[in-house]
Amino acid sequence: MKKINFYAGPAILAQEVIEEASKSALSFGDMGLSILEISHRSKEFVSVLEEAEALVRELLNVSDEYGVLFLSGGASSQFYMTAMNLLNEGDKAGYLDTGAWSSKAIKEAKLFGEIEVVASSKDKNYNYIPTGYDIPSDYKYLHLTSNNTIFGTEIFNWPETDVPFVADMSSDIFSRPLDISKFSIIYAGAQKNLGPSGVTLVIVKKDILNKVEKALPTMLKYQTHIDKDSSFNTPPVYPIYVSMLTLRWIKKNGGVAAMEKKNIEKSDLLYNEIDRNSLFEGTAAKEDRSRMNVCFLLKDEALEAEFLKDCAAAGCVGVKGHRSVGGFRASIYNAMPKAGVQTLVDVMKKFEEKNT
Amino acid sequence: MKKINFYAGPAILAQEVIEEASKSALSFGDMGLSILEISHRSKEFVSVLEEAEALVRELLNVSDEYGVLFLSGGASSQFYMTAMNLLNEGDKAGYLDTGAWSSKAIKEAKLFGEIEVVASSKDKNYNYIPTGYDIPSDYKYLHLTSNNTIFGTEIFNWPETDVPFVADMSSDIFSRPLDISKFSIIYAGAQKNLGPSGVTLVIVKKDILNKVEKALPTMLKYQTHIDKDSSFNTPPVYPIYVSMLTLRWIKKNGGVAAMEKKNIEKSDLLYNEIDRNSLFEGTAAKEDRSRMNVCFLLKDEALEAEFLKDCAAAGCVGVKGHRSVGGFRASIYNAMPKAGVQTLVDVMKKFEEKNT
Repeated sequence: MKKINFYAGPAILAQEVIEEASKSALSFGDMGLSILEISHRSKEFVSVLEEAEALVRELLNVSDEYGVLFLSGGASSQFYMTAMNLLNEGDKAGYLDTGAWSSKAIKEAKLFGEIEVVASSKDKNYNYIPTGYDIPSDYKYLHLTSNNTIFGTEIFNWPETDVPFVADMSSDIFSRPLDISKFSIIYAGAQKNLGPSGVTLVIVKKDILNKVEKALPTMLKYQTHIDKDSSFNTPPVYPIYVSMLTLRWIKKNGGVAAMEKKNIEKSDLLYNEIDRNSLFEGTAAKEDRSRMNVCFLLKDEALEAEFLKDCAAAGCVGVKGHRSVGGFRASIYNAMPKAGVQTLVDVMKKFEEKNT
Repeated sequence: MKKINFYAGPAILAQEVIEEASKSALSFGDMGLSILEISHRSKEFVSVLEEAEALVRELLNVSDEYGVLFLSGGASSQFYMTAMNLLNEGDKAGYLDTGAWSSKAIKEAKLFGEIEVVASSKDKNYNYIPTGYDIPSDYKYLHLTSNNTIFGTEIFNWPETDVPFVADMSSDIFSRPLDISKFSIIYAGAQKNLGPSGVTLVIVKKDILNKVEKALPTMLKYQTHIDKDSSFNTPPVYPIYVSMLTLRWIKKNGGVAAMEKKNIEKSDLLYNEIDRNSLFEGTAAKEDRSRMNVCFLLKDEALEAEFLKDCAAAGCVGVKGHRSVGGFRASIYNAMPKAGVQTLVDVMKKFEEKNT
């Protein structure tokens, strides 16, 4: 029986995407071949790549001022590629430290410029999004992690500044509308809201590129991949294909505005139960609660194993919290149906009845 | 109907691998989830990764002195990562220039050390493998492209030297036995003999690492991936899984010695027909003819379109040659059955009957 997948990532995909992806792995369209063995230069795959790019542009309203790239190496590779492509030695950039992934981005960027941490929520185990910090106008960019998968916080109010953003949106891309014009670069590992692991979406403003003096390897320049439409070398064909199927699914289901509405309903449903239920409590500051990753604790830690057992019995998997926070984490990305969240809420209700 | 896939890469996979891969994309083992949506930290995927590594070690006889890594970014990323991880400024390395991919490797390596081209076959459009060149003992390594996909040449006699090799074996890895002890690094994009695109196998000798002085981004150090068993960040789960299935298939079919035997039979079958048939001629020097990529021409270019039409009618796809060589290229990797090659040979025979 199909499980209800609350894993943080790689994460749930829409069932109709999975079915189509499986079918194409056996035989793709009328090619008489599996999509796993077709040339990335075939007209059939070029068409997949073009459709994926067009859907990203349509769904997020991305103009031609930006390149839309499908790269390898995960968000972890973007931690250094962003700084490497934008900063000359001595150039300044600001970083907002909102968790483990922000910290890694800061560490890698320090190899390439003067990195200033504008604010950090480390003092409270990253359970809130800092506000009210200064953003000097000489920053080349301000780096933000828009959703913090581990700590369950999300940026809803983007800082007011003329400094452009570079944002790691791995875990909330396509979950809500965005004003792209504020961003120099958006990057996102596919494996939460976009597709399987193995591909990273990068949306990059073209006029910020080619201003660094150092010589970079060809593969590490965004310009290379813009010039060659993400096919300078062999791209990860299947991860891109499944991402394209997911983008089609998002469009068919009303686009990112409809996703946001559904995500608000789903996260409200779960947070309301956490707040109502006498046994549980949320870990993140209420105003910063992520709609993607819902982190919560049992007030009585001794009950944890039993609760996880009840989750498993109801078909809910991936509910155990990250070791940095403990307790539980329910990742409820776009592809999680409301009924899945309701199942978890029902387990919590019954668990309260049993244990009070 | 299933086509006979002669594409150079991404390339043919064994049909039983494709069927299992498709099944797991729908539902993996007894997890109740698609493999596309499972955590890379799940015990099920950790087990896939461990089996893949163990099979590489077993099939190629790789000792614990070497790390076996599954990375992102393709062989194109290894062009710079190898040099970046092995060369300090002023260090020398030799490169054998046997084609387009060698030339790209040379270009990227020049950013990191003193790169000397020991020999080149560019004078004859790369239709042979140079021999008899000097290999100074102060080279940190000698870089070789063991099989040249575009030009249809392959290195059968490894140079005699104490200088260790760094080799791009993207298109002939697992096609024959190797003496691993001669190599510092072997790298191979999966999409020819190993799996679908999106993962790169790297076999790296551990004691050559951590000798460069420059600070490298964490993701670009081989040591990072050795320390974290290829899971420092989220790896490309599905490409690794399908590669593991292919490694299982190689083992089940007798390992790399059996692959070599079959590859000799298949390539002999096709080259013998090229030499016998009055209409065709091979492009590579006979002693350097690749067993993986068979390049040939029609003596009368005017017949090309008709021959491609006959190939297509017989279900043979991907036979058109690379623009650098023209004519035809039949890529006959491990997964190509002898019957597939026979079909192409039959088309050539009938074509001769029709046109003489």
